[in-house]
Amino acid sequence: MANEKKNAFYAQSGGVTAVINASACGLIEAAREHPDKIDKVYAGRNGIIGALTEDLIDTSQESADDIAALRYTPGGAFGSCRHKLKSIEENEAEYKRLIEVFEAHNIGYFFYNGGGDSQDTAHKVSQIGEKMGYPITCIGVPKTVDNDLPITDNCPGFGSVAKYVATSIREASFDVASMAKTSTKVFVMEVMGRHAGWIAAAGGLATEKQGDAPHIILFPEITFDQEKFLARVEDSVKQYGYCSIVVSEGVKNADGKFLAEAGGTDAFGHKQLGGVAPVVAELIKEQCGLKYHWAVADYLQRAARHIASKTDVEQAYALGRKAVEFALQGHNAVMPAIKRTSDDPYQWEIGMANLADVANVEKMMPEDYISSDGFHITDACRRYLQPLIIGEDYPPFKNGLPHYVTLKNAAVEKKLATSFEL
Amino acid sequence: MANEKKNAFYAQSGGVTAVINASACGLIEAAREHPDKIDKVYAGRNGIIGALTEDLIDTSQESADDIAALRYTPGGAFGSCRHKLKSIEENEAEYKRLIEVFEAHNIGYFFYNGGGDSQDTAHKVSQIGEKMGYPITCIGVPKTVDNDLPITDNCPGFGSVAKYVATSIREASFDVASMAKTSTKVFVMEVMGRHAGWIAAAGGLATEKQGDAPHIILFPEITFDQEKFLARVEDSVKQYGYCSIVVSEGVKNADGKFLAEAGGTDAFGHKQLGGVAPVVAELIKEQCGLKYHWAVADYLQRAARHIASKTDVEQAYALGRKAVEFALQGHNAVMPAIKRTSDDPYQWEIGMANLADVANVEKMMPEDYISSDGFHITDACRRYLQPLIIGEDYPPFKNGLPHYVTLKNAAVEKKLATSFEL
Repeated sequence: MANEKKNAFYAQSGGVTAVINASACGLIEAAREHPDKIDKVYAGRNGIIGALTEDLIDTSQESADDIAALRYTPGGAFGSCRHKLKSIEENEAEYKRLIEVFEAHNIGYFFYNGGGDSQDTAHKVSQIGEKMGYPITCIGVPKTVDNDLPITDNCPGFGSVAKYVATSIREASFDVASMAKTSTKVFVMEVMGRHAGWIAAAGGLATEKQGDAPHIILFPEITFDQEKFLARVEDSVKQYGYCSIVVSEGVKNADGKFLAEAGGTDAFGHKQLGGVAPVVAELIKEQCGLKYHWAVADYLQRAARHIASKTDVEQAYALGRKAVEFALQGHNAVMPAIKRTSDDPYQWEIGMANLADVANVEKMMPEDYISSDGFHITDACRRYLQPLIIGEDYPPFKNGLPHYVTLKNAAVEKKLATSFEL
Repeated sequence: MANEKKNAFYAQSGGVTAVINASACGLIEAAREHPDKIDKVYAGRNGIIGALTEDLIDTSQESADDIAALRYTPGGAFGSCRHKLKSIEENEAEYKRLIEVFEAHNIGYFFYNGGGDSQDTAHKVSQIGEKMGYPITCIGVPKTVDNDLPITDNCPGFGSVAKYVATSIREASFDVASMAKTSTKVFVMEVMGRHAGWIAAAGGLATEKQGDAPHIILFPEITFDQEKFLARVEDSVKQYGYCSIVVSEGVKNADGKFLAEAGGTDAFGHKQLGGVAPVVAELIKEQCGLKYHWAVADYLQRAARHIASKTDVEQAYALGRKAVEFALQGHNAVMPAIKRTSDDPYQWEIGMANLADVANVEKMMPEDYISSDGFHITDACRRYLQPLIIGEDYPPFKNGLPHYVTLKNAAVEKKLATSFEL
């Protein structure tokens, strides 16, 4: 019977968010409620790398208060990673190593918290039971500001970025509107979203009536048409006195090239972007002679826990809890997913997705979410996005600043004699 | 006796802030409490330009609720401007025109809400009584995110930017700390502050103990030393796993040139800056091979009413009210100024500064506010800055977004036959 009680492995992977720790909080709190089945939750230090290198964190050494504080702390409390597992066939050594570590630490549950690439990792790990004879219960926990996971109606992390972006473009637009008479007439704010325009679209929520900023949204889905764009800028300045623009980092020209190329690539081979805002702003100055300001929110947008969406926080937390429930119910290779049951009033519940259906599938924005001129969002898009930013969930403040927790992150004693070369 | 009751002119000038409307709110509310002395408050549409072009806004047509909502609405509700008056000797025509407009609209009080350039304008207008025989009571209301006005202990607008910057660098640093193992190791956040490092210094408030981000602050006061800087970056990555940097837009190299030059100039002949963050980030990548992310907050920082400092809001409001008090007490050519009476517990009151002493004087950061290595703030600086960011003062939210007011801004009927060429 001693065997029935297993330890759990939990790790965070990929780009972190304002609420990924809320999922960690839900998961660890739920696990602590079942000491008969789950002994300890070991967190991987820096995602799957922690498992491969036997670098485990003993979360049982964290106080209940500190775990509770994860609910309002941005970033990844245990460290994240960008490390993609190859298939079992391609790199059996990695999987053998995982099994070695899992066995040494009596790990029977594997929770992996991340986006598309991470769910692929979770899916591959789930196969070691069947293919390599090591029984493990494997549950993915969704997370990505990109909102591009399939099946789940939305992804934890996205709602908070959406709220930040819509709030920020509204605020900056109040500013530029005041300055426009004799100074800045154009404001350009660059937001994340490499392939899908979800985050850029969220900026559109700030437009509640004719003339409200932003006046133009540039989506990665819409090929950049310089002439049409500049005409629209000038039109907006004429009509409203200024022009406020949200531009996605992923906007491409007719040749399929990103308007801004930073040159580098990340560990997954994605181009590292940044800096389309100054490109667009300079273009406007050159062609229209309009004075501009531009901002690049970058990490600020996905880390902005101080302006997180309450809906987002609640969902992130609930998904973490549900992952434990699924595991204890004996499910394997699945991911809890948000299911929307009503737009207005907004209602949601948690359903179940198969990791096989989630891994490596990117959910694009529906075509009918972008207005026919390509520069704004439609009512359908607004109906989808609106509930995701509802509610505020302020962190506690101390000395005038958000008071976030840094965990002890004490290492679990290593049991293996061997180390592992990544 | 009819003559005793005068209208007041109020206008906003220069770069706007998250709380300049709180001053407008205090001023208009206070004026409304004295209908026996102040008939109507006419706001200049776009600052002094509104006076010159007889483009006045009748604020008496705004409801008490809408005026109250100014307290939590960023930007300049009546429009701002960058228009510097020449001296009476250099451009008498402008002053004659002002008198013409003031006379036509029975304006006996002139309130001008702005920074150093604007207080200079207020000071010049105050001279038309003595030099040109038009009696007017002229009061400046301080405002500038740059915190560079003399005499006043601090400037409304600055505390909120300070809170935003310290919050944002803390949040983004939690993010990059999680990513550093396999991805981003350096984060660079660019902030405003052309000549003085007040805003950059505020980022230092996020550092509460050894190792806390930001690890490096680049001040305009300290000549950029590439070698020393890069060594510090590498040291930080070695010690803490990552390096978080706040850089002021005004940082200069040994030749006295801005690290980033945007090329344009504003109406006051100041260089328009932007983009030092990518310059610094690229340098780190080239020289140290470290992966980076960077953000440029730009207008987001000074418009971020959602994370305004309560202290700042209260002071902005109180200064607006006090301006009216000063005027009714018969003072002229003065500006209400914050006087700090205690650091801890923080206590302040409002004193009086002469516009002659304020106009065109830029308050630099004391040298002992920057640590001897030039990369961080001292305890003296922290003691000064800390109280300014204390307290939250959230705006109301609707549909998940801050609900800001847009006034009717109805024009006062023109009485002059002539127009005025700016």
